[in-house]
Amino acid sequence: MADTTWKEKAAEKREALLSSIPLEWRLPAPLPPPAELPNVTGPEIRKYLSAREIEITETSAVYIIRKTSSGEWRCEDVVRAFCHRAAVAHQMINCLHEMFFDAAIHDAKTLDAYFAEHGKPLGPLHGLPVSLKDTIHVSNVDTSMGIIGWLDTFEGQPLLEKTSRPESTIVTHLRTLGAIHYVKTSVPQGSFAGETINHIVGHTPNPSNRNLVVGGSSGGEGGLLALYGSPIGLGTDIGGSIRLPASFNGCYGLKPSTGRLPFQGIASIVDGESAIPFVVGPMGHSVADLVFLTKALLAVEPWRSDPGDHELPWRDEVCETVRSRFRGKGERLAFGVMYSDGIVNPQPPVARALGEAVQLLKSLGHTVIEWKPPPHAEALTIWRENITIDGGHAFHSALSLSGEPATPTVFGSKPSAPVDATEVMRRTIALRNYRKAYLDYWNSTAALTGTGKPVDALIAPVHHGPPPAMGKVRYMGYTCAFNVLDYSVSVIPVTRARKDIDVYPSNYSPLNKMDSIVHDDYNANLLDGAPVGIQIIGQRLQEETVLALSEEISWELGRGQVPRL
Amino acid sequence: MADTTWKEKAAEKREALLSSIPLEWRLPAPLPPPAELPNVTGPEIRKYLSAREIEITETSAVYIIRKTSSGEWRCEDVVRAFCHRAAVAHQMINCLHEMFFDAAIHDAKTLDAYFAEHGKPLGPLHGLPVSLKDTIHVSNVDTSMGIIGWLDTFEGQPLLEKTSRPESTIVTHLRTLGAIHYVKTSVPQGSFAGETINHIVGHTPNPSNRNLVVGGSSGGEGGLLALYGSPIGLGTDIGGSIRLPASFNGCYGLKPSTGRLPFQGIASIVDGESAIPFVVGPMGHSVADLVFLTKALLAVEPWRSDPGDHELPWRDEVCETVRSRFRGKGERLAFGVMYSDGIVNPQPPVARALGEAVQLLKSLGHTVIEWKPPPHAEALTIWRENITIDGGHAFHSALSLSGEPATPTVFGSKPSAPVDATEVMRRTIALRNYRKAYLDYWNSTAALTGTGKPVDALIAPVHHGPPPAMGKVRYMGYTCAFNVLDYSVSVIPVTRARKDIDVYPSNYSPLNKMDSIVHDDYNANLLDGAPVGIQIIGQRLQEETVLALSEEISWELGRGQVPRL
Repeated sequence: MADTTWKEKAAEKREALLSSIPLEWRLPAPLPPPAELPNVTGPEIRKYLSAREIEITETSAVYIIRKTSSGEWRCEDVVRAFCHRAAVAHQMINCLHEMFFDAAIHDAKTLDAYFAEHGKPLGPLHGLPVSLKDTIHVSNVDTSMGIIGWLDTFEGQPLLEKTSRPESTIVTHLRTLGAIHYVKTSVPQGSFAGETINHIVGHTPNPSNRNLVVGGSSGGEGGLLALYGSPIGLGTDIGGSIRLPASFNGCYGLKPSTGRLPFQGIASIVDGESAIPFVVGPMGHSVADLVFLTKALLAVEPWRSDPGDHELPWRDEVCETVRSRFRGKGERLAFGVMYSDGIVNPQPPVARALGEAVQLLKSLGHTVIEWKPPPHAEALTIWRENITIDGGHAFHSALSLSGEPATPTVFGSKPSAPVDATEVMRRTIALRNYRKAYLDYWNSTAALTGTGKPVDALIAPVHHGPPPAMGKVRYMGYTCAFNVLDYSVSVIPVTRARKDIDVYPSNYSPLNKMDSIVHDDYNANLLDGAPVGIQIIGQRLQEETVLALSEEISWELGRGQVPRL
Repeated sequence: MADTTWKEKAAEKREALLSSIPLEWRLPAPLPPPAELPNVTGPEIRKYLSAREIEITETSAVYIIRKTSSGEWRCEDVVRAFCHRAAVAHQMINCLHEMFFDAAIHDAKTLDAYFAEHGKPLGPLHGLPVSLKDTIHVSNVDTSMGIIGWLDTFEGQPLLEKTSRPESTIVTHLRTLGAIHYVKTSVPQGSFAGETINHIVGHTPNPSNRNLVVGGSSGGEGGLLALYGSPIGLGTDIGGSIRLPASFNGCYGLKPSTGRLPFQGIASIVDGESAIPFVVGPMGHSVADLVFLTKALLAVEPWRSDPGDHELPWRDEVCETVRSRFRGKGERLAFGVMYSDGIVNPQPPVARALGEAVQLLKSLGHTVIEWKPPPHAEALTIWRENITIDGGHAFHSALSLSGEPATPTVFGSKPSAPVDATEVMRRTIALRNYRKAYLDYWNSTAALTGTGKPVDALIAPVHHGPPPAMGKVRYMGYTCAFNVLDYSVSVIPVTRARKDIDVYPSNYSPLNKMDSIVHDDYNANLLDGAPVGIQIIGQRLQEETVLALSEEISWELGRGQVPRL
């Protein structure tokens, strides 16, 4: 590091990454600028692929597995197709930090050989490519997390043996199940922002409209999915990092509660901050895909190797009950809907998405009540206070390894002094008290639902708007409140912004300064066509309820890409 | 407080407590000093009770419930008998902080009226008296936690309304189930020591030998149980506070993992320290009693009102499998045994107790392997470092409310500066890494058990010795290591110290300075007859396995006081 500046080091990595793409997969010419070619999804990326590659890469994960598990498709063909598409995607939106195609093709060949020999798949994910956010460690693969000083190290520590890095537990499980890893996706510097910019790969724009952000921190994951460069991937979330990119890219995501999926061995720039923990969860093209991956992971009993995981197997019976009730068999369901958190009102496309979901639920005979919880402003204070106990010490120490400056959009770009332990404890207590008050409120809705029971789930915006222009994410209150609560949350796509109907009333009266800024940010022409999702929220460790509802609601909204399982 | 010194305030409370005992329950004359009358259990305390009261109070909790639930016994008679016996016990060993007999008798009458009207019990614990450690809040009852400045306050804060204090969630659940509360039991100052001394009620000695300590911090609970002044009670544990008093008083205790039983609303002097959390659990006269109470509490689904609880119902099928295997049906079991933690060797009675348990397990055909885990010395450092992040700030602030000094035996009697958040985070990471290393070690025993699977449970000392003389608890490493790991642990009584056979070898070579002190502490004559228990340890959230094993082992050791359920 002493001999090279951080800019040189970053450029070196950036170039190495591009040169690792096989010549035949390189784009023949640079893309036109975003102003000329905003949307590179669908037909734009298909231009570079064969019909066979398009067929494979636009098949849903559960169907890929059916084909690889029956021998109809070779794993090698599947993996090559995704490697190619991912390589093209990266050239379009800088969405990858690592490509390890040779290792992936080697793994695919091994699986094909296994199938040839035994006449059966290795495991329930036989040959499924799974992309990974760059915070997740893979043996023999670098993890920069968007920090130059982390390149060629293990989380900033010198590598004793270059070839042996501890792999995140979830990666090992996925391999055991037959999955194949082939790329690690881009994140903001330190993986701690709502948009994805770092000094190594630069900016990852939104592939549906490259004038907009892709979201973050699992931004590369979201962008890669939107380009169908991955059938399913893993993100992590401490304030919205799975949900924002899912919503901004028209895909599905699950932020589970802590202790449901194994976080053991995944990198975090606030490692050791335990009040609001990072969680890992799947992002993909359908709820059925998320369910399939989650069930497969729980079937390996991850609590046997991750001391932070609870022994809580997948509960199919919960899903079945929720599905039956949704379809009108048995007691009707009750939902809370949060039209606004009282701090920033949703922009028109988001308000419309919520309205469509509510209308659907009501039309099916379910109860919907307006959600009036303990102030979310308090949740946001608690979130910020707990997330910043070290004043950004770990983050800025990591930056100082190379001397690179903080990117302007990263959370905590200016360091402050770490607080002392008595203050850490006060903040932990405030968090616990808020959780208790929220649970009490949730229980109190039993008096309002007409069923005598509290609401089964809550519906809320993911973000106040569709993906905005660069530098304008501004506010993540709708997602981070549910990290404070450690609730189980999924994101489903609902609609796309429409400039013709999604307009603020001319007499709109902003709630406050921030709401006024958000109002002024809204540009109906620019955002036209941008994806909009909603959150479906259950209490802690209610992944089954949340996913079952997500599947049913998505289906009814006409977005089910595979039959309901 | 301004007008009275801390000594006056403490004396006032102490006197008020004694005067609240009905005249007919006062001892006719002071007891002889401990040197003359060491043991006040059994025949000594029975002297003050009627035959009917003795019958009731020496009945196991599950049998009391059968009788109250069938109408054979009136709840009022049961509660009066326990109130009387507890009042006598307090006069013998200062084991109570609060007596609220009138409220308890009122509750009993309400339950009797319910039974008379409906011909059935109110709930599964109908009329069962449950004693509570003083850290647990009860409406309208004081909580001093052994701190003078907390008297007539809510955890040191002025009481807005004297009559309305927030009740700990577990107390509300127990009431719903039909239990009756009548006393809160003594704890050390701040509830943070292995023996029970405070400036309010003074010293709680061991009722089996008043020259020895009762243990702590749930010391009053242990002493009260040994005197049969309670059929079952609740303690809390962050380093051994349920297990030490259980072992020192020949009774049973369960330290569950975090999130199994609701801790919501229970006081703690390290509130907000979350790496090593306090847990609440039952202490009683048989494993069957502990199981019954735990099952009843889980049946109310405590996770619906405590956001820290996991949705993990009682798993009867796990118990059944473990019981069958213990009895020789199906695969044999495998146990680890920790003969020493390598820091302090067990004194001879404890070594003998472990040996008896191992011999039993082997004679039944089970496998026992010697436990060689990641160094417990590291666990103890992690424990101490995490428990003391605030440098005793909260504890000493609480003391300063009245000006009382710290008692010499309390943990953290000398304050130090709180550490900063980066250090808090470093300590949290060290804890997580230790947990992972321990789990990996546990899994690695699959290569040693001969079953191809890791050990089912671990057997270890509770303490290096039987209850020692005052001021000599010295070391709590055998218990606090399992708080670091958050494992599920029970304590069962195994034997009593015997001066004739429990002697160190004459050539005993101490491991270190502390081991030498512990060796020199051992006084076979003084400890003769003192109770000795062992820990039965499962991984995190394995309460069912641990209790099922405890029941079977206790039964085989000839200590089962009720039939196996």
